[in-house]
Amino acid sequence: MISQKPLILITNDDGVNAPGLHYLTQSVLPYGDVIVVAPNGPRSGQSSAITVDAPLYINECDPINTAKVYSTTGTPVDCVKLAMHAIVDRKPALLLSGINHGSNSGNSLIYSGTMGAVIEGCMIGIPSIGFSLLQYSWDADFTNCGHTIKSITEKVLNEGLPQNICLNVNIPAKCTPKGIRTVRATHGHWTEEYQKYSSPHGRTFYWLTGNYVVDENPEATDNEDYWLNRQYSTIVPVRPDQSALDQLDSLLFNREF
Amino acid sequence: MISQKPLILITNDDGVNAPGLHYLTQSVLPYGDVIVVAPNGPRSGQSSAITVDAPLYINECDPINTAKVYSTTGTPVDCVKLAMHAIVDRKPALLLSGINHGSNSGNSLIYSGTMGAVIEGCMIGIPSIGFSLLQYSWDADFTNCGHTIKSITEKVLNEGLPQNICLNVNIPAKCTPKGIRTVRATHGHWTEEYQKYSSPHGRTFYWLTGNYVVDENPEATDNEDYWLNRQYSTIVPVRPDQSALDQLDSLLFNREF
Repeated sequence: MISQKPLILITNDDGVNAPGLHYLTQSVLPYGDVIVVAPNGPRSGQSSAITVDAPLYINECDPINTAKVYSTTGTPVDCVKLAMHAIVDRKPALLLSGINHGSNSGNSLIYSGTMGAVIEGCMIGIPSIGFSLLQYSWDADFTNCGHTIKSITEKVLNEGLPQNICLNVNIPAKCTPKGIRTVRATHGHWTEEYQKYSSPHGRTFYWLTGNYVVDENPEATDNEDYWLNRQYSTIVPVRPDQSALDQLDSLLFNREF
Repeated sequence: MISQKPLILITNDDGVNAPGLHYLTQSVLPYGDVIVVAPNGPRSGQSSAITVDAPLYINECDPINTAKVYSTTGTPVDCVKLAMHAIVDRKPALLLSGINHGSNSGNSLIYSGTMGAVIEGCMIGIPSIGFSLLQYSWDADFTNCGHTIKSITEKVLNEGLPQNICLNVNIPAKCTPKGIRTVRATHGHWTEEYQKYSSPHGRTFYWLTGNYVVDENPEATDNEDYWLNRQYSTIVPVRPDQSALDQLDSLLFNREF
């Protein structure tokens, strides 16, 4: 017999053993039946990548309290697709991703595996939310994330989200958040993106690094120097479809050959 | 002395040896100085993935006619970032990605490595265009892509693109295109996304497959059954920033704790 409780599907990009995933799972156990399907190791920066040229495996792991837990050999998006295809017995009422160990503000959204999973959930019609904490450490302290997670989860379970809209939530690093602000993603750019090395054998290699430079007044955005620095969590409403509808009439490429 | 010709940076997700990349490069040689920086092998489905946990190498390859060619061990986005950091001597006037062996219509944009590179170029302020042909074979026939590529490349080199807008171009599979239509991405969903197997040792594994089901009238979209099937190339104007600005006032999450 299928449970009448809402089903909550959880994933992340830091892997099935990440403390942020475990904290998120524990936080929402009271709200429904919870199933975790997460990568078997770190998949940061995987965006909406999918595995097209390799087989994917699913393994059952130790439960987190009453939540069943599975790991896969794929990306965060693979986890969502595999969960829907082979694991869940009904459509989830909610997809949650995170808590990411580190911020996903600004255009980090584009690269984030945490948000790749959220966008996937949204595209298949599940209200979907990504949570990220502004602490990058594996030992990040998630104890103050509960207010934000529970407040948003309760509201979305009760009221849903607009069609084709998902949420990118960032939580300040320290102290209890004072509240929540809905904003747009900050505009900025990355500089000095690589460190250059020479291997012991004289071969040059590069490693991704870089600084994010903000190009605007951050007040109405998820910029880390504004609301997040003032101890507010930020929510960016995200529309996966990137069609620029306002450009259809002004971009005059239509022609006959 | 730096050349006065426009610099055109080319990449793809099928890898540096893909015929589509070579055809694209040859097609635009008359328009400027061309540099190719592409993955050293296939990276389909890599979306905007970046390599955060591994070193990246750059290798110089045989030129394509007068174009210098480099391969990297990274994703398409890594290629763009590495090109900007370590290879080009000035900001490209244009970034081209493709020609992809296969369509990138509808929400394939989200998963496409071809378009991941285009979105990266756009975010760093380069007019950026992705080209995809509706033939999936390695031996795809690109000979009729020239009209579309040259028409769009000339126009964008002369007039630029609106800020923060890039282009997703699909080219019909057969015959010479009759023209170009500017449209939005089609809405649909994937079904039966995995084939299930049992290994010789009895272990279950899954491989990505699936069918795309269109959920709407395809006329104003890049759906393969409409303009592309009528031998027109389609252009979708793409805005990388997914902030849903129209939702900022209606999504009432703002609160104090």
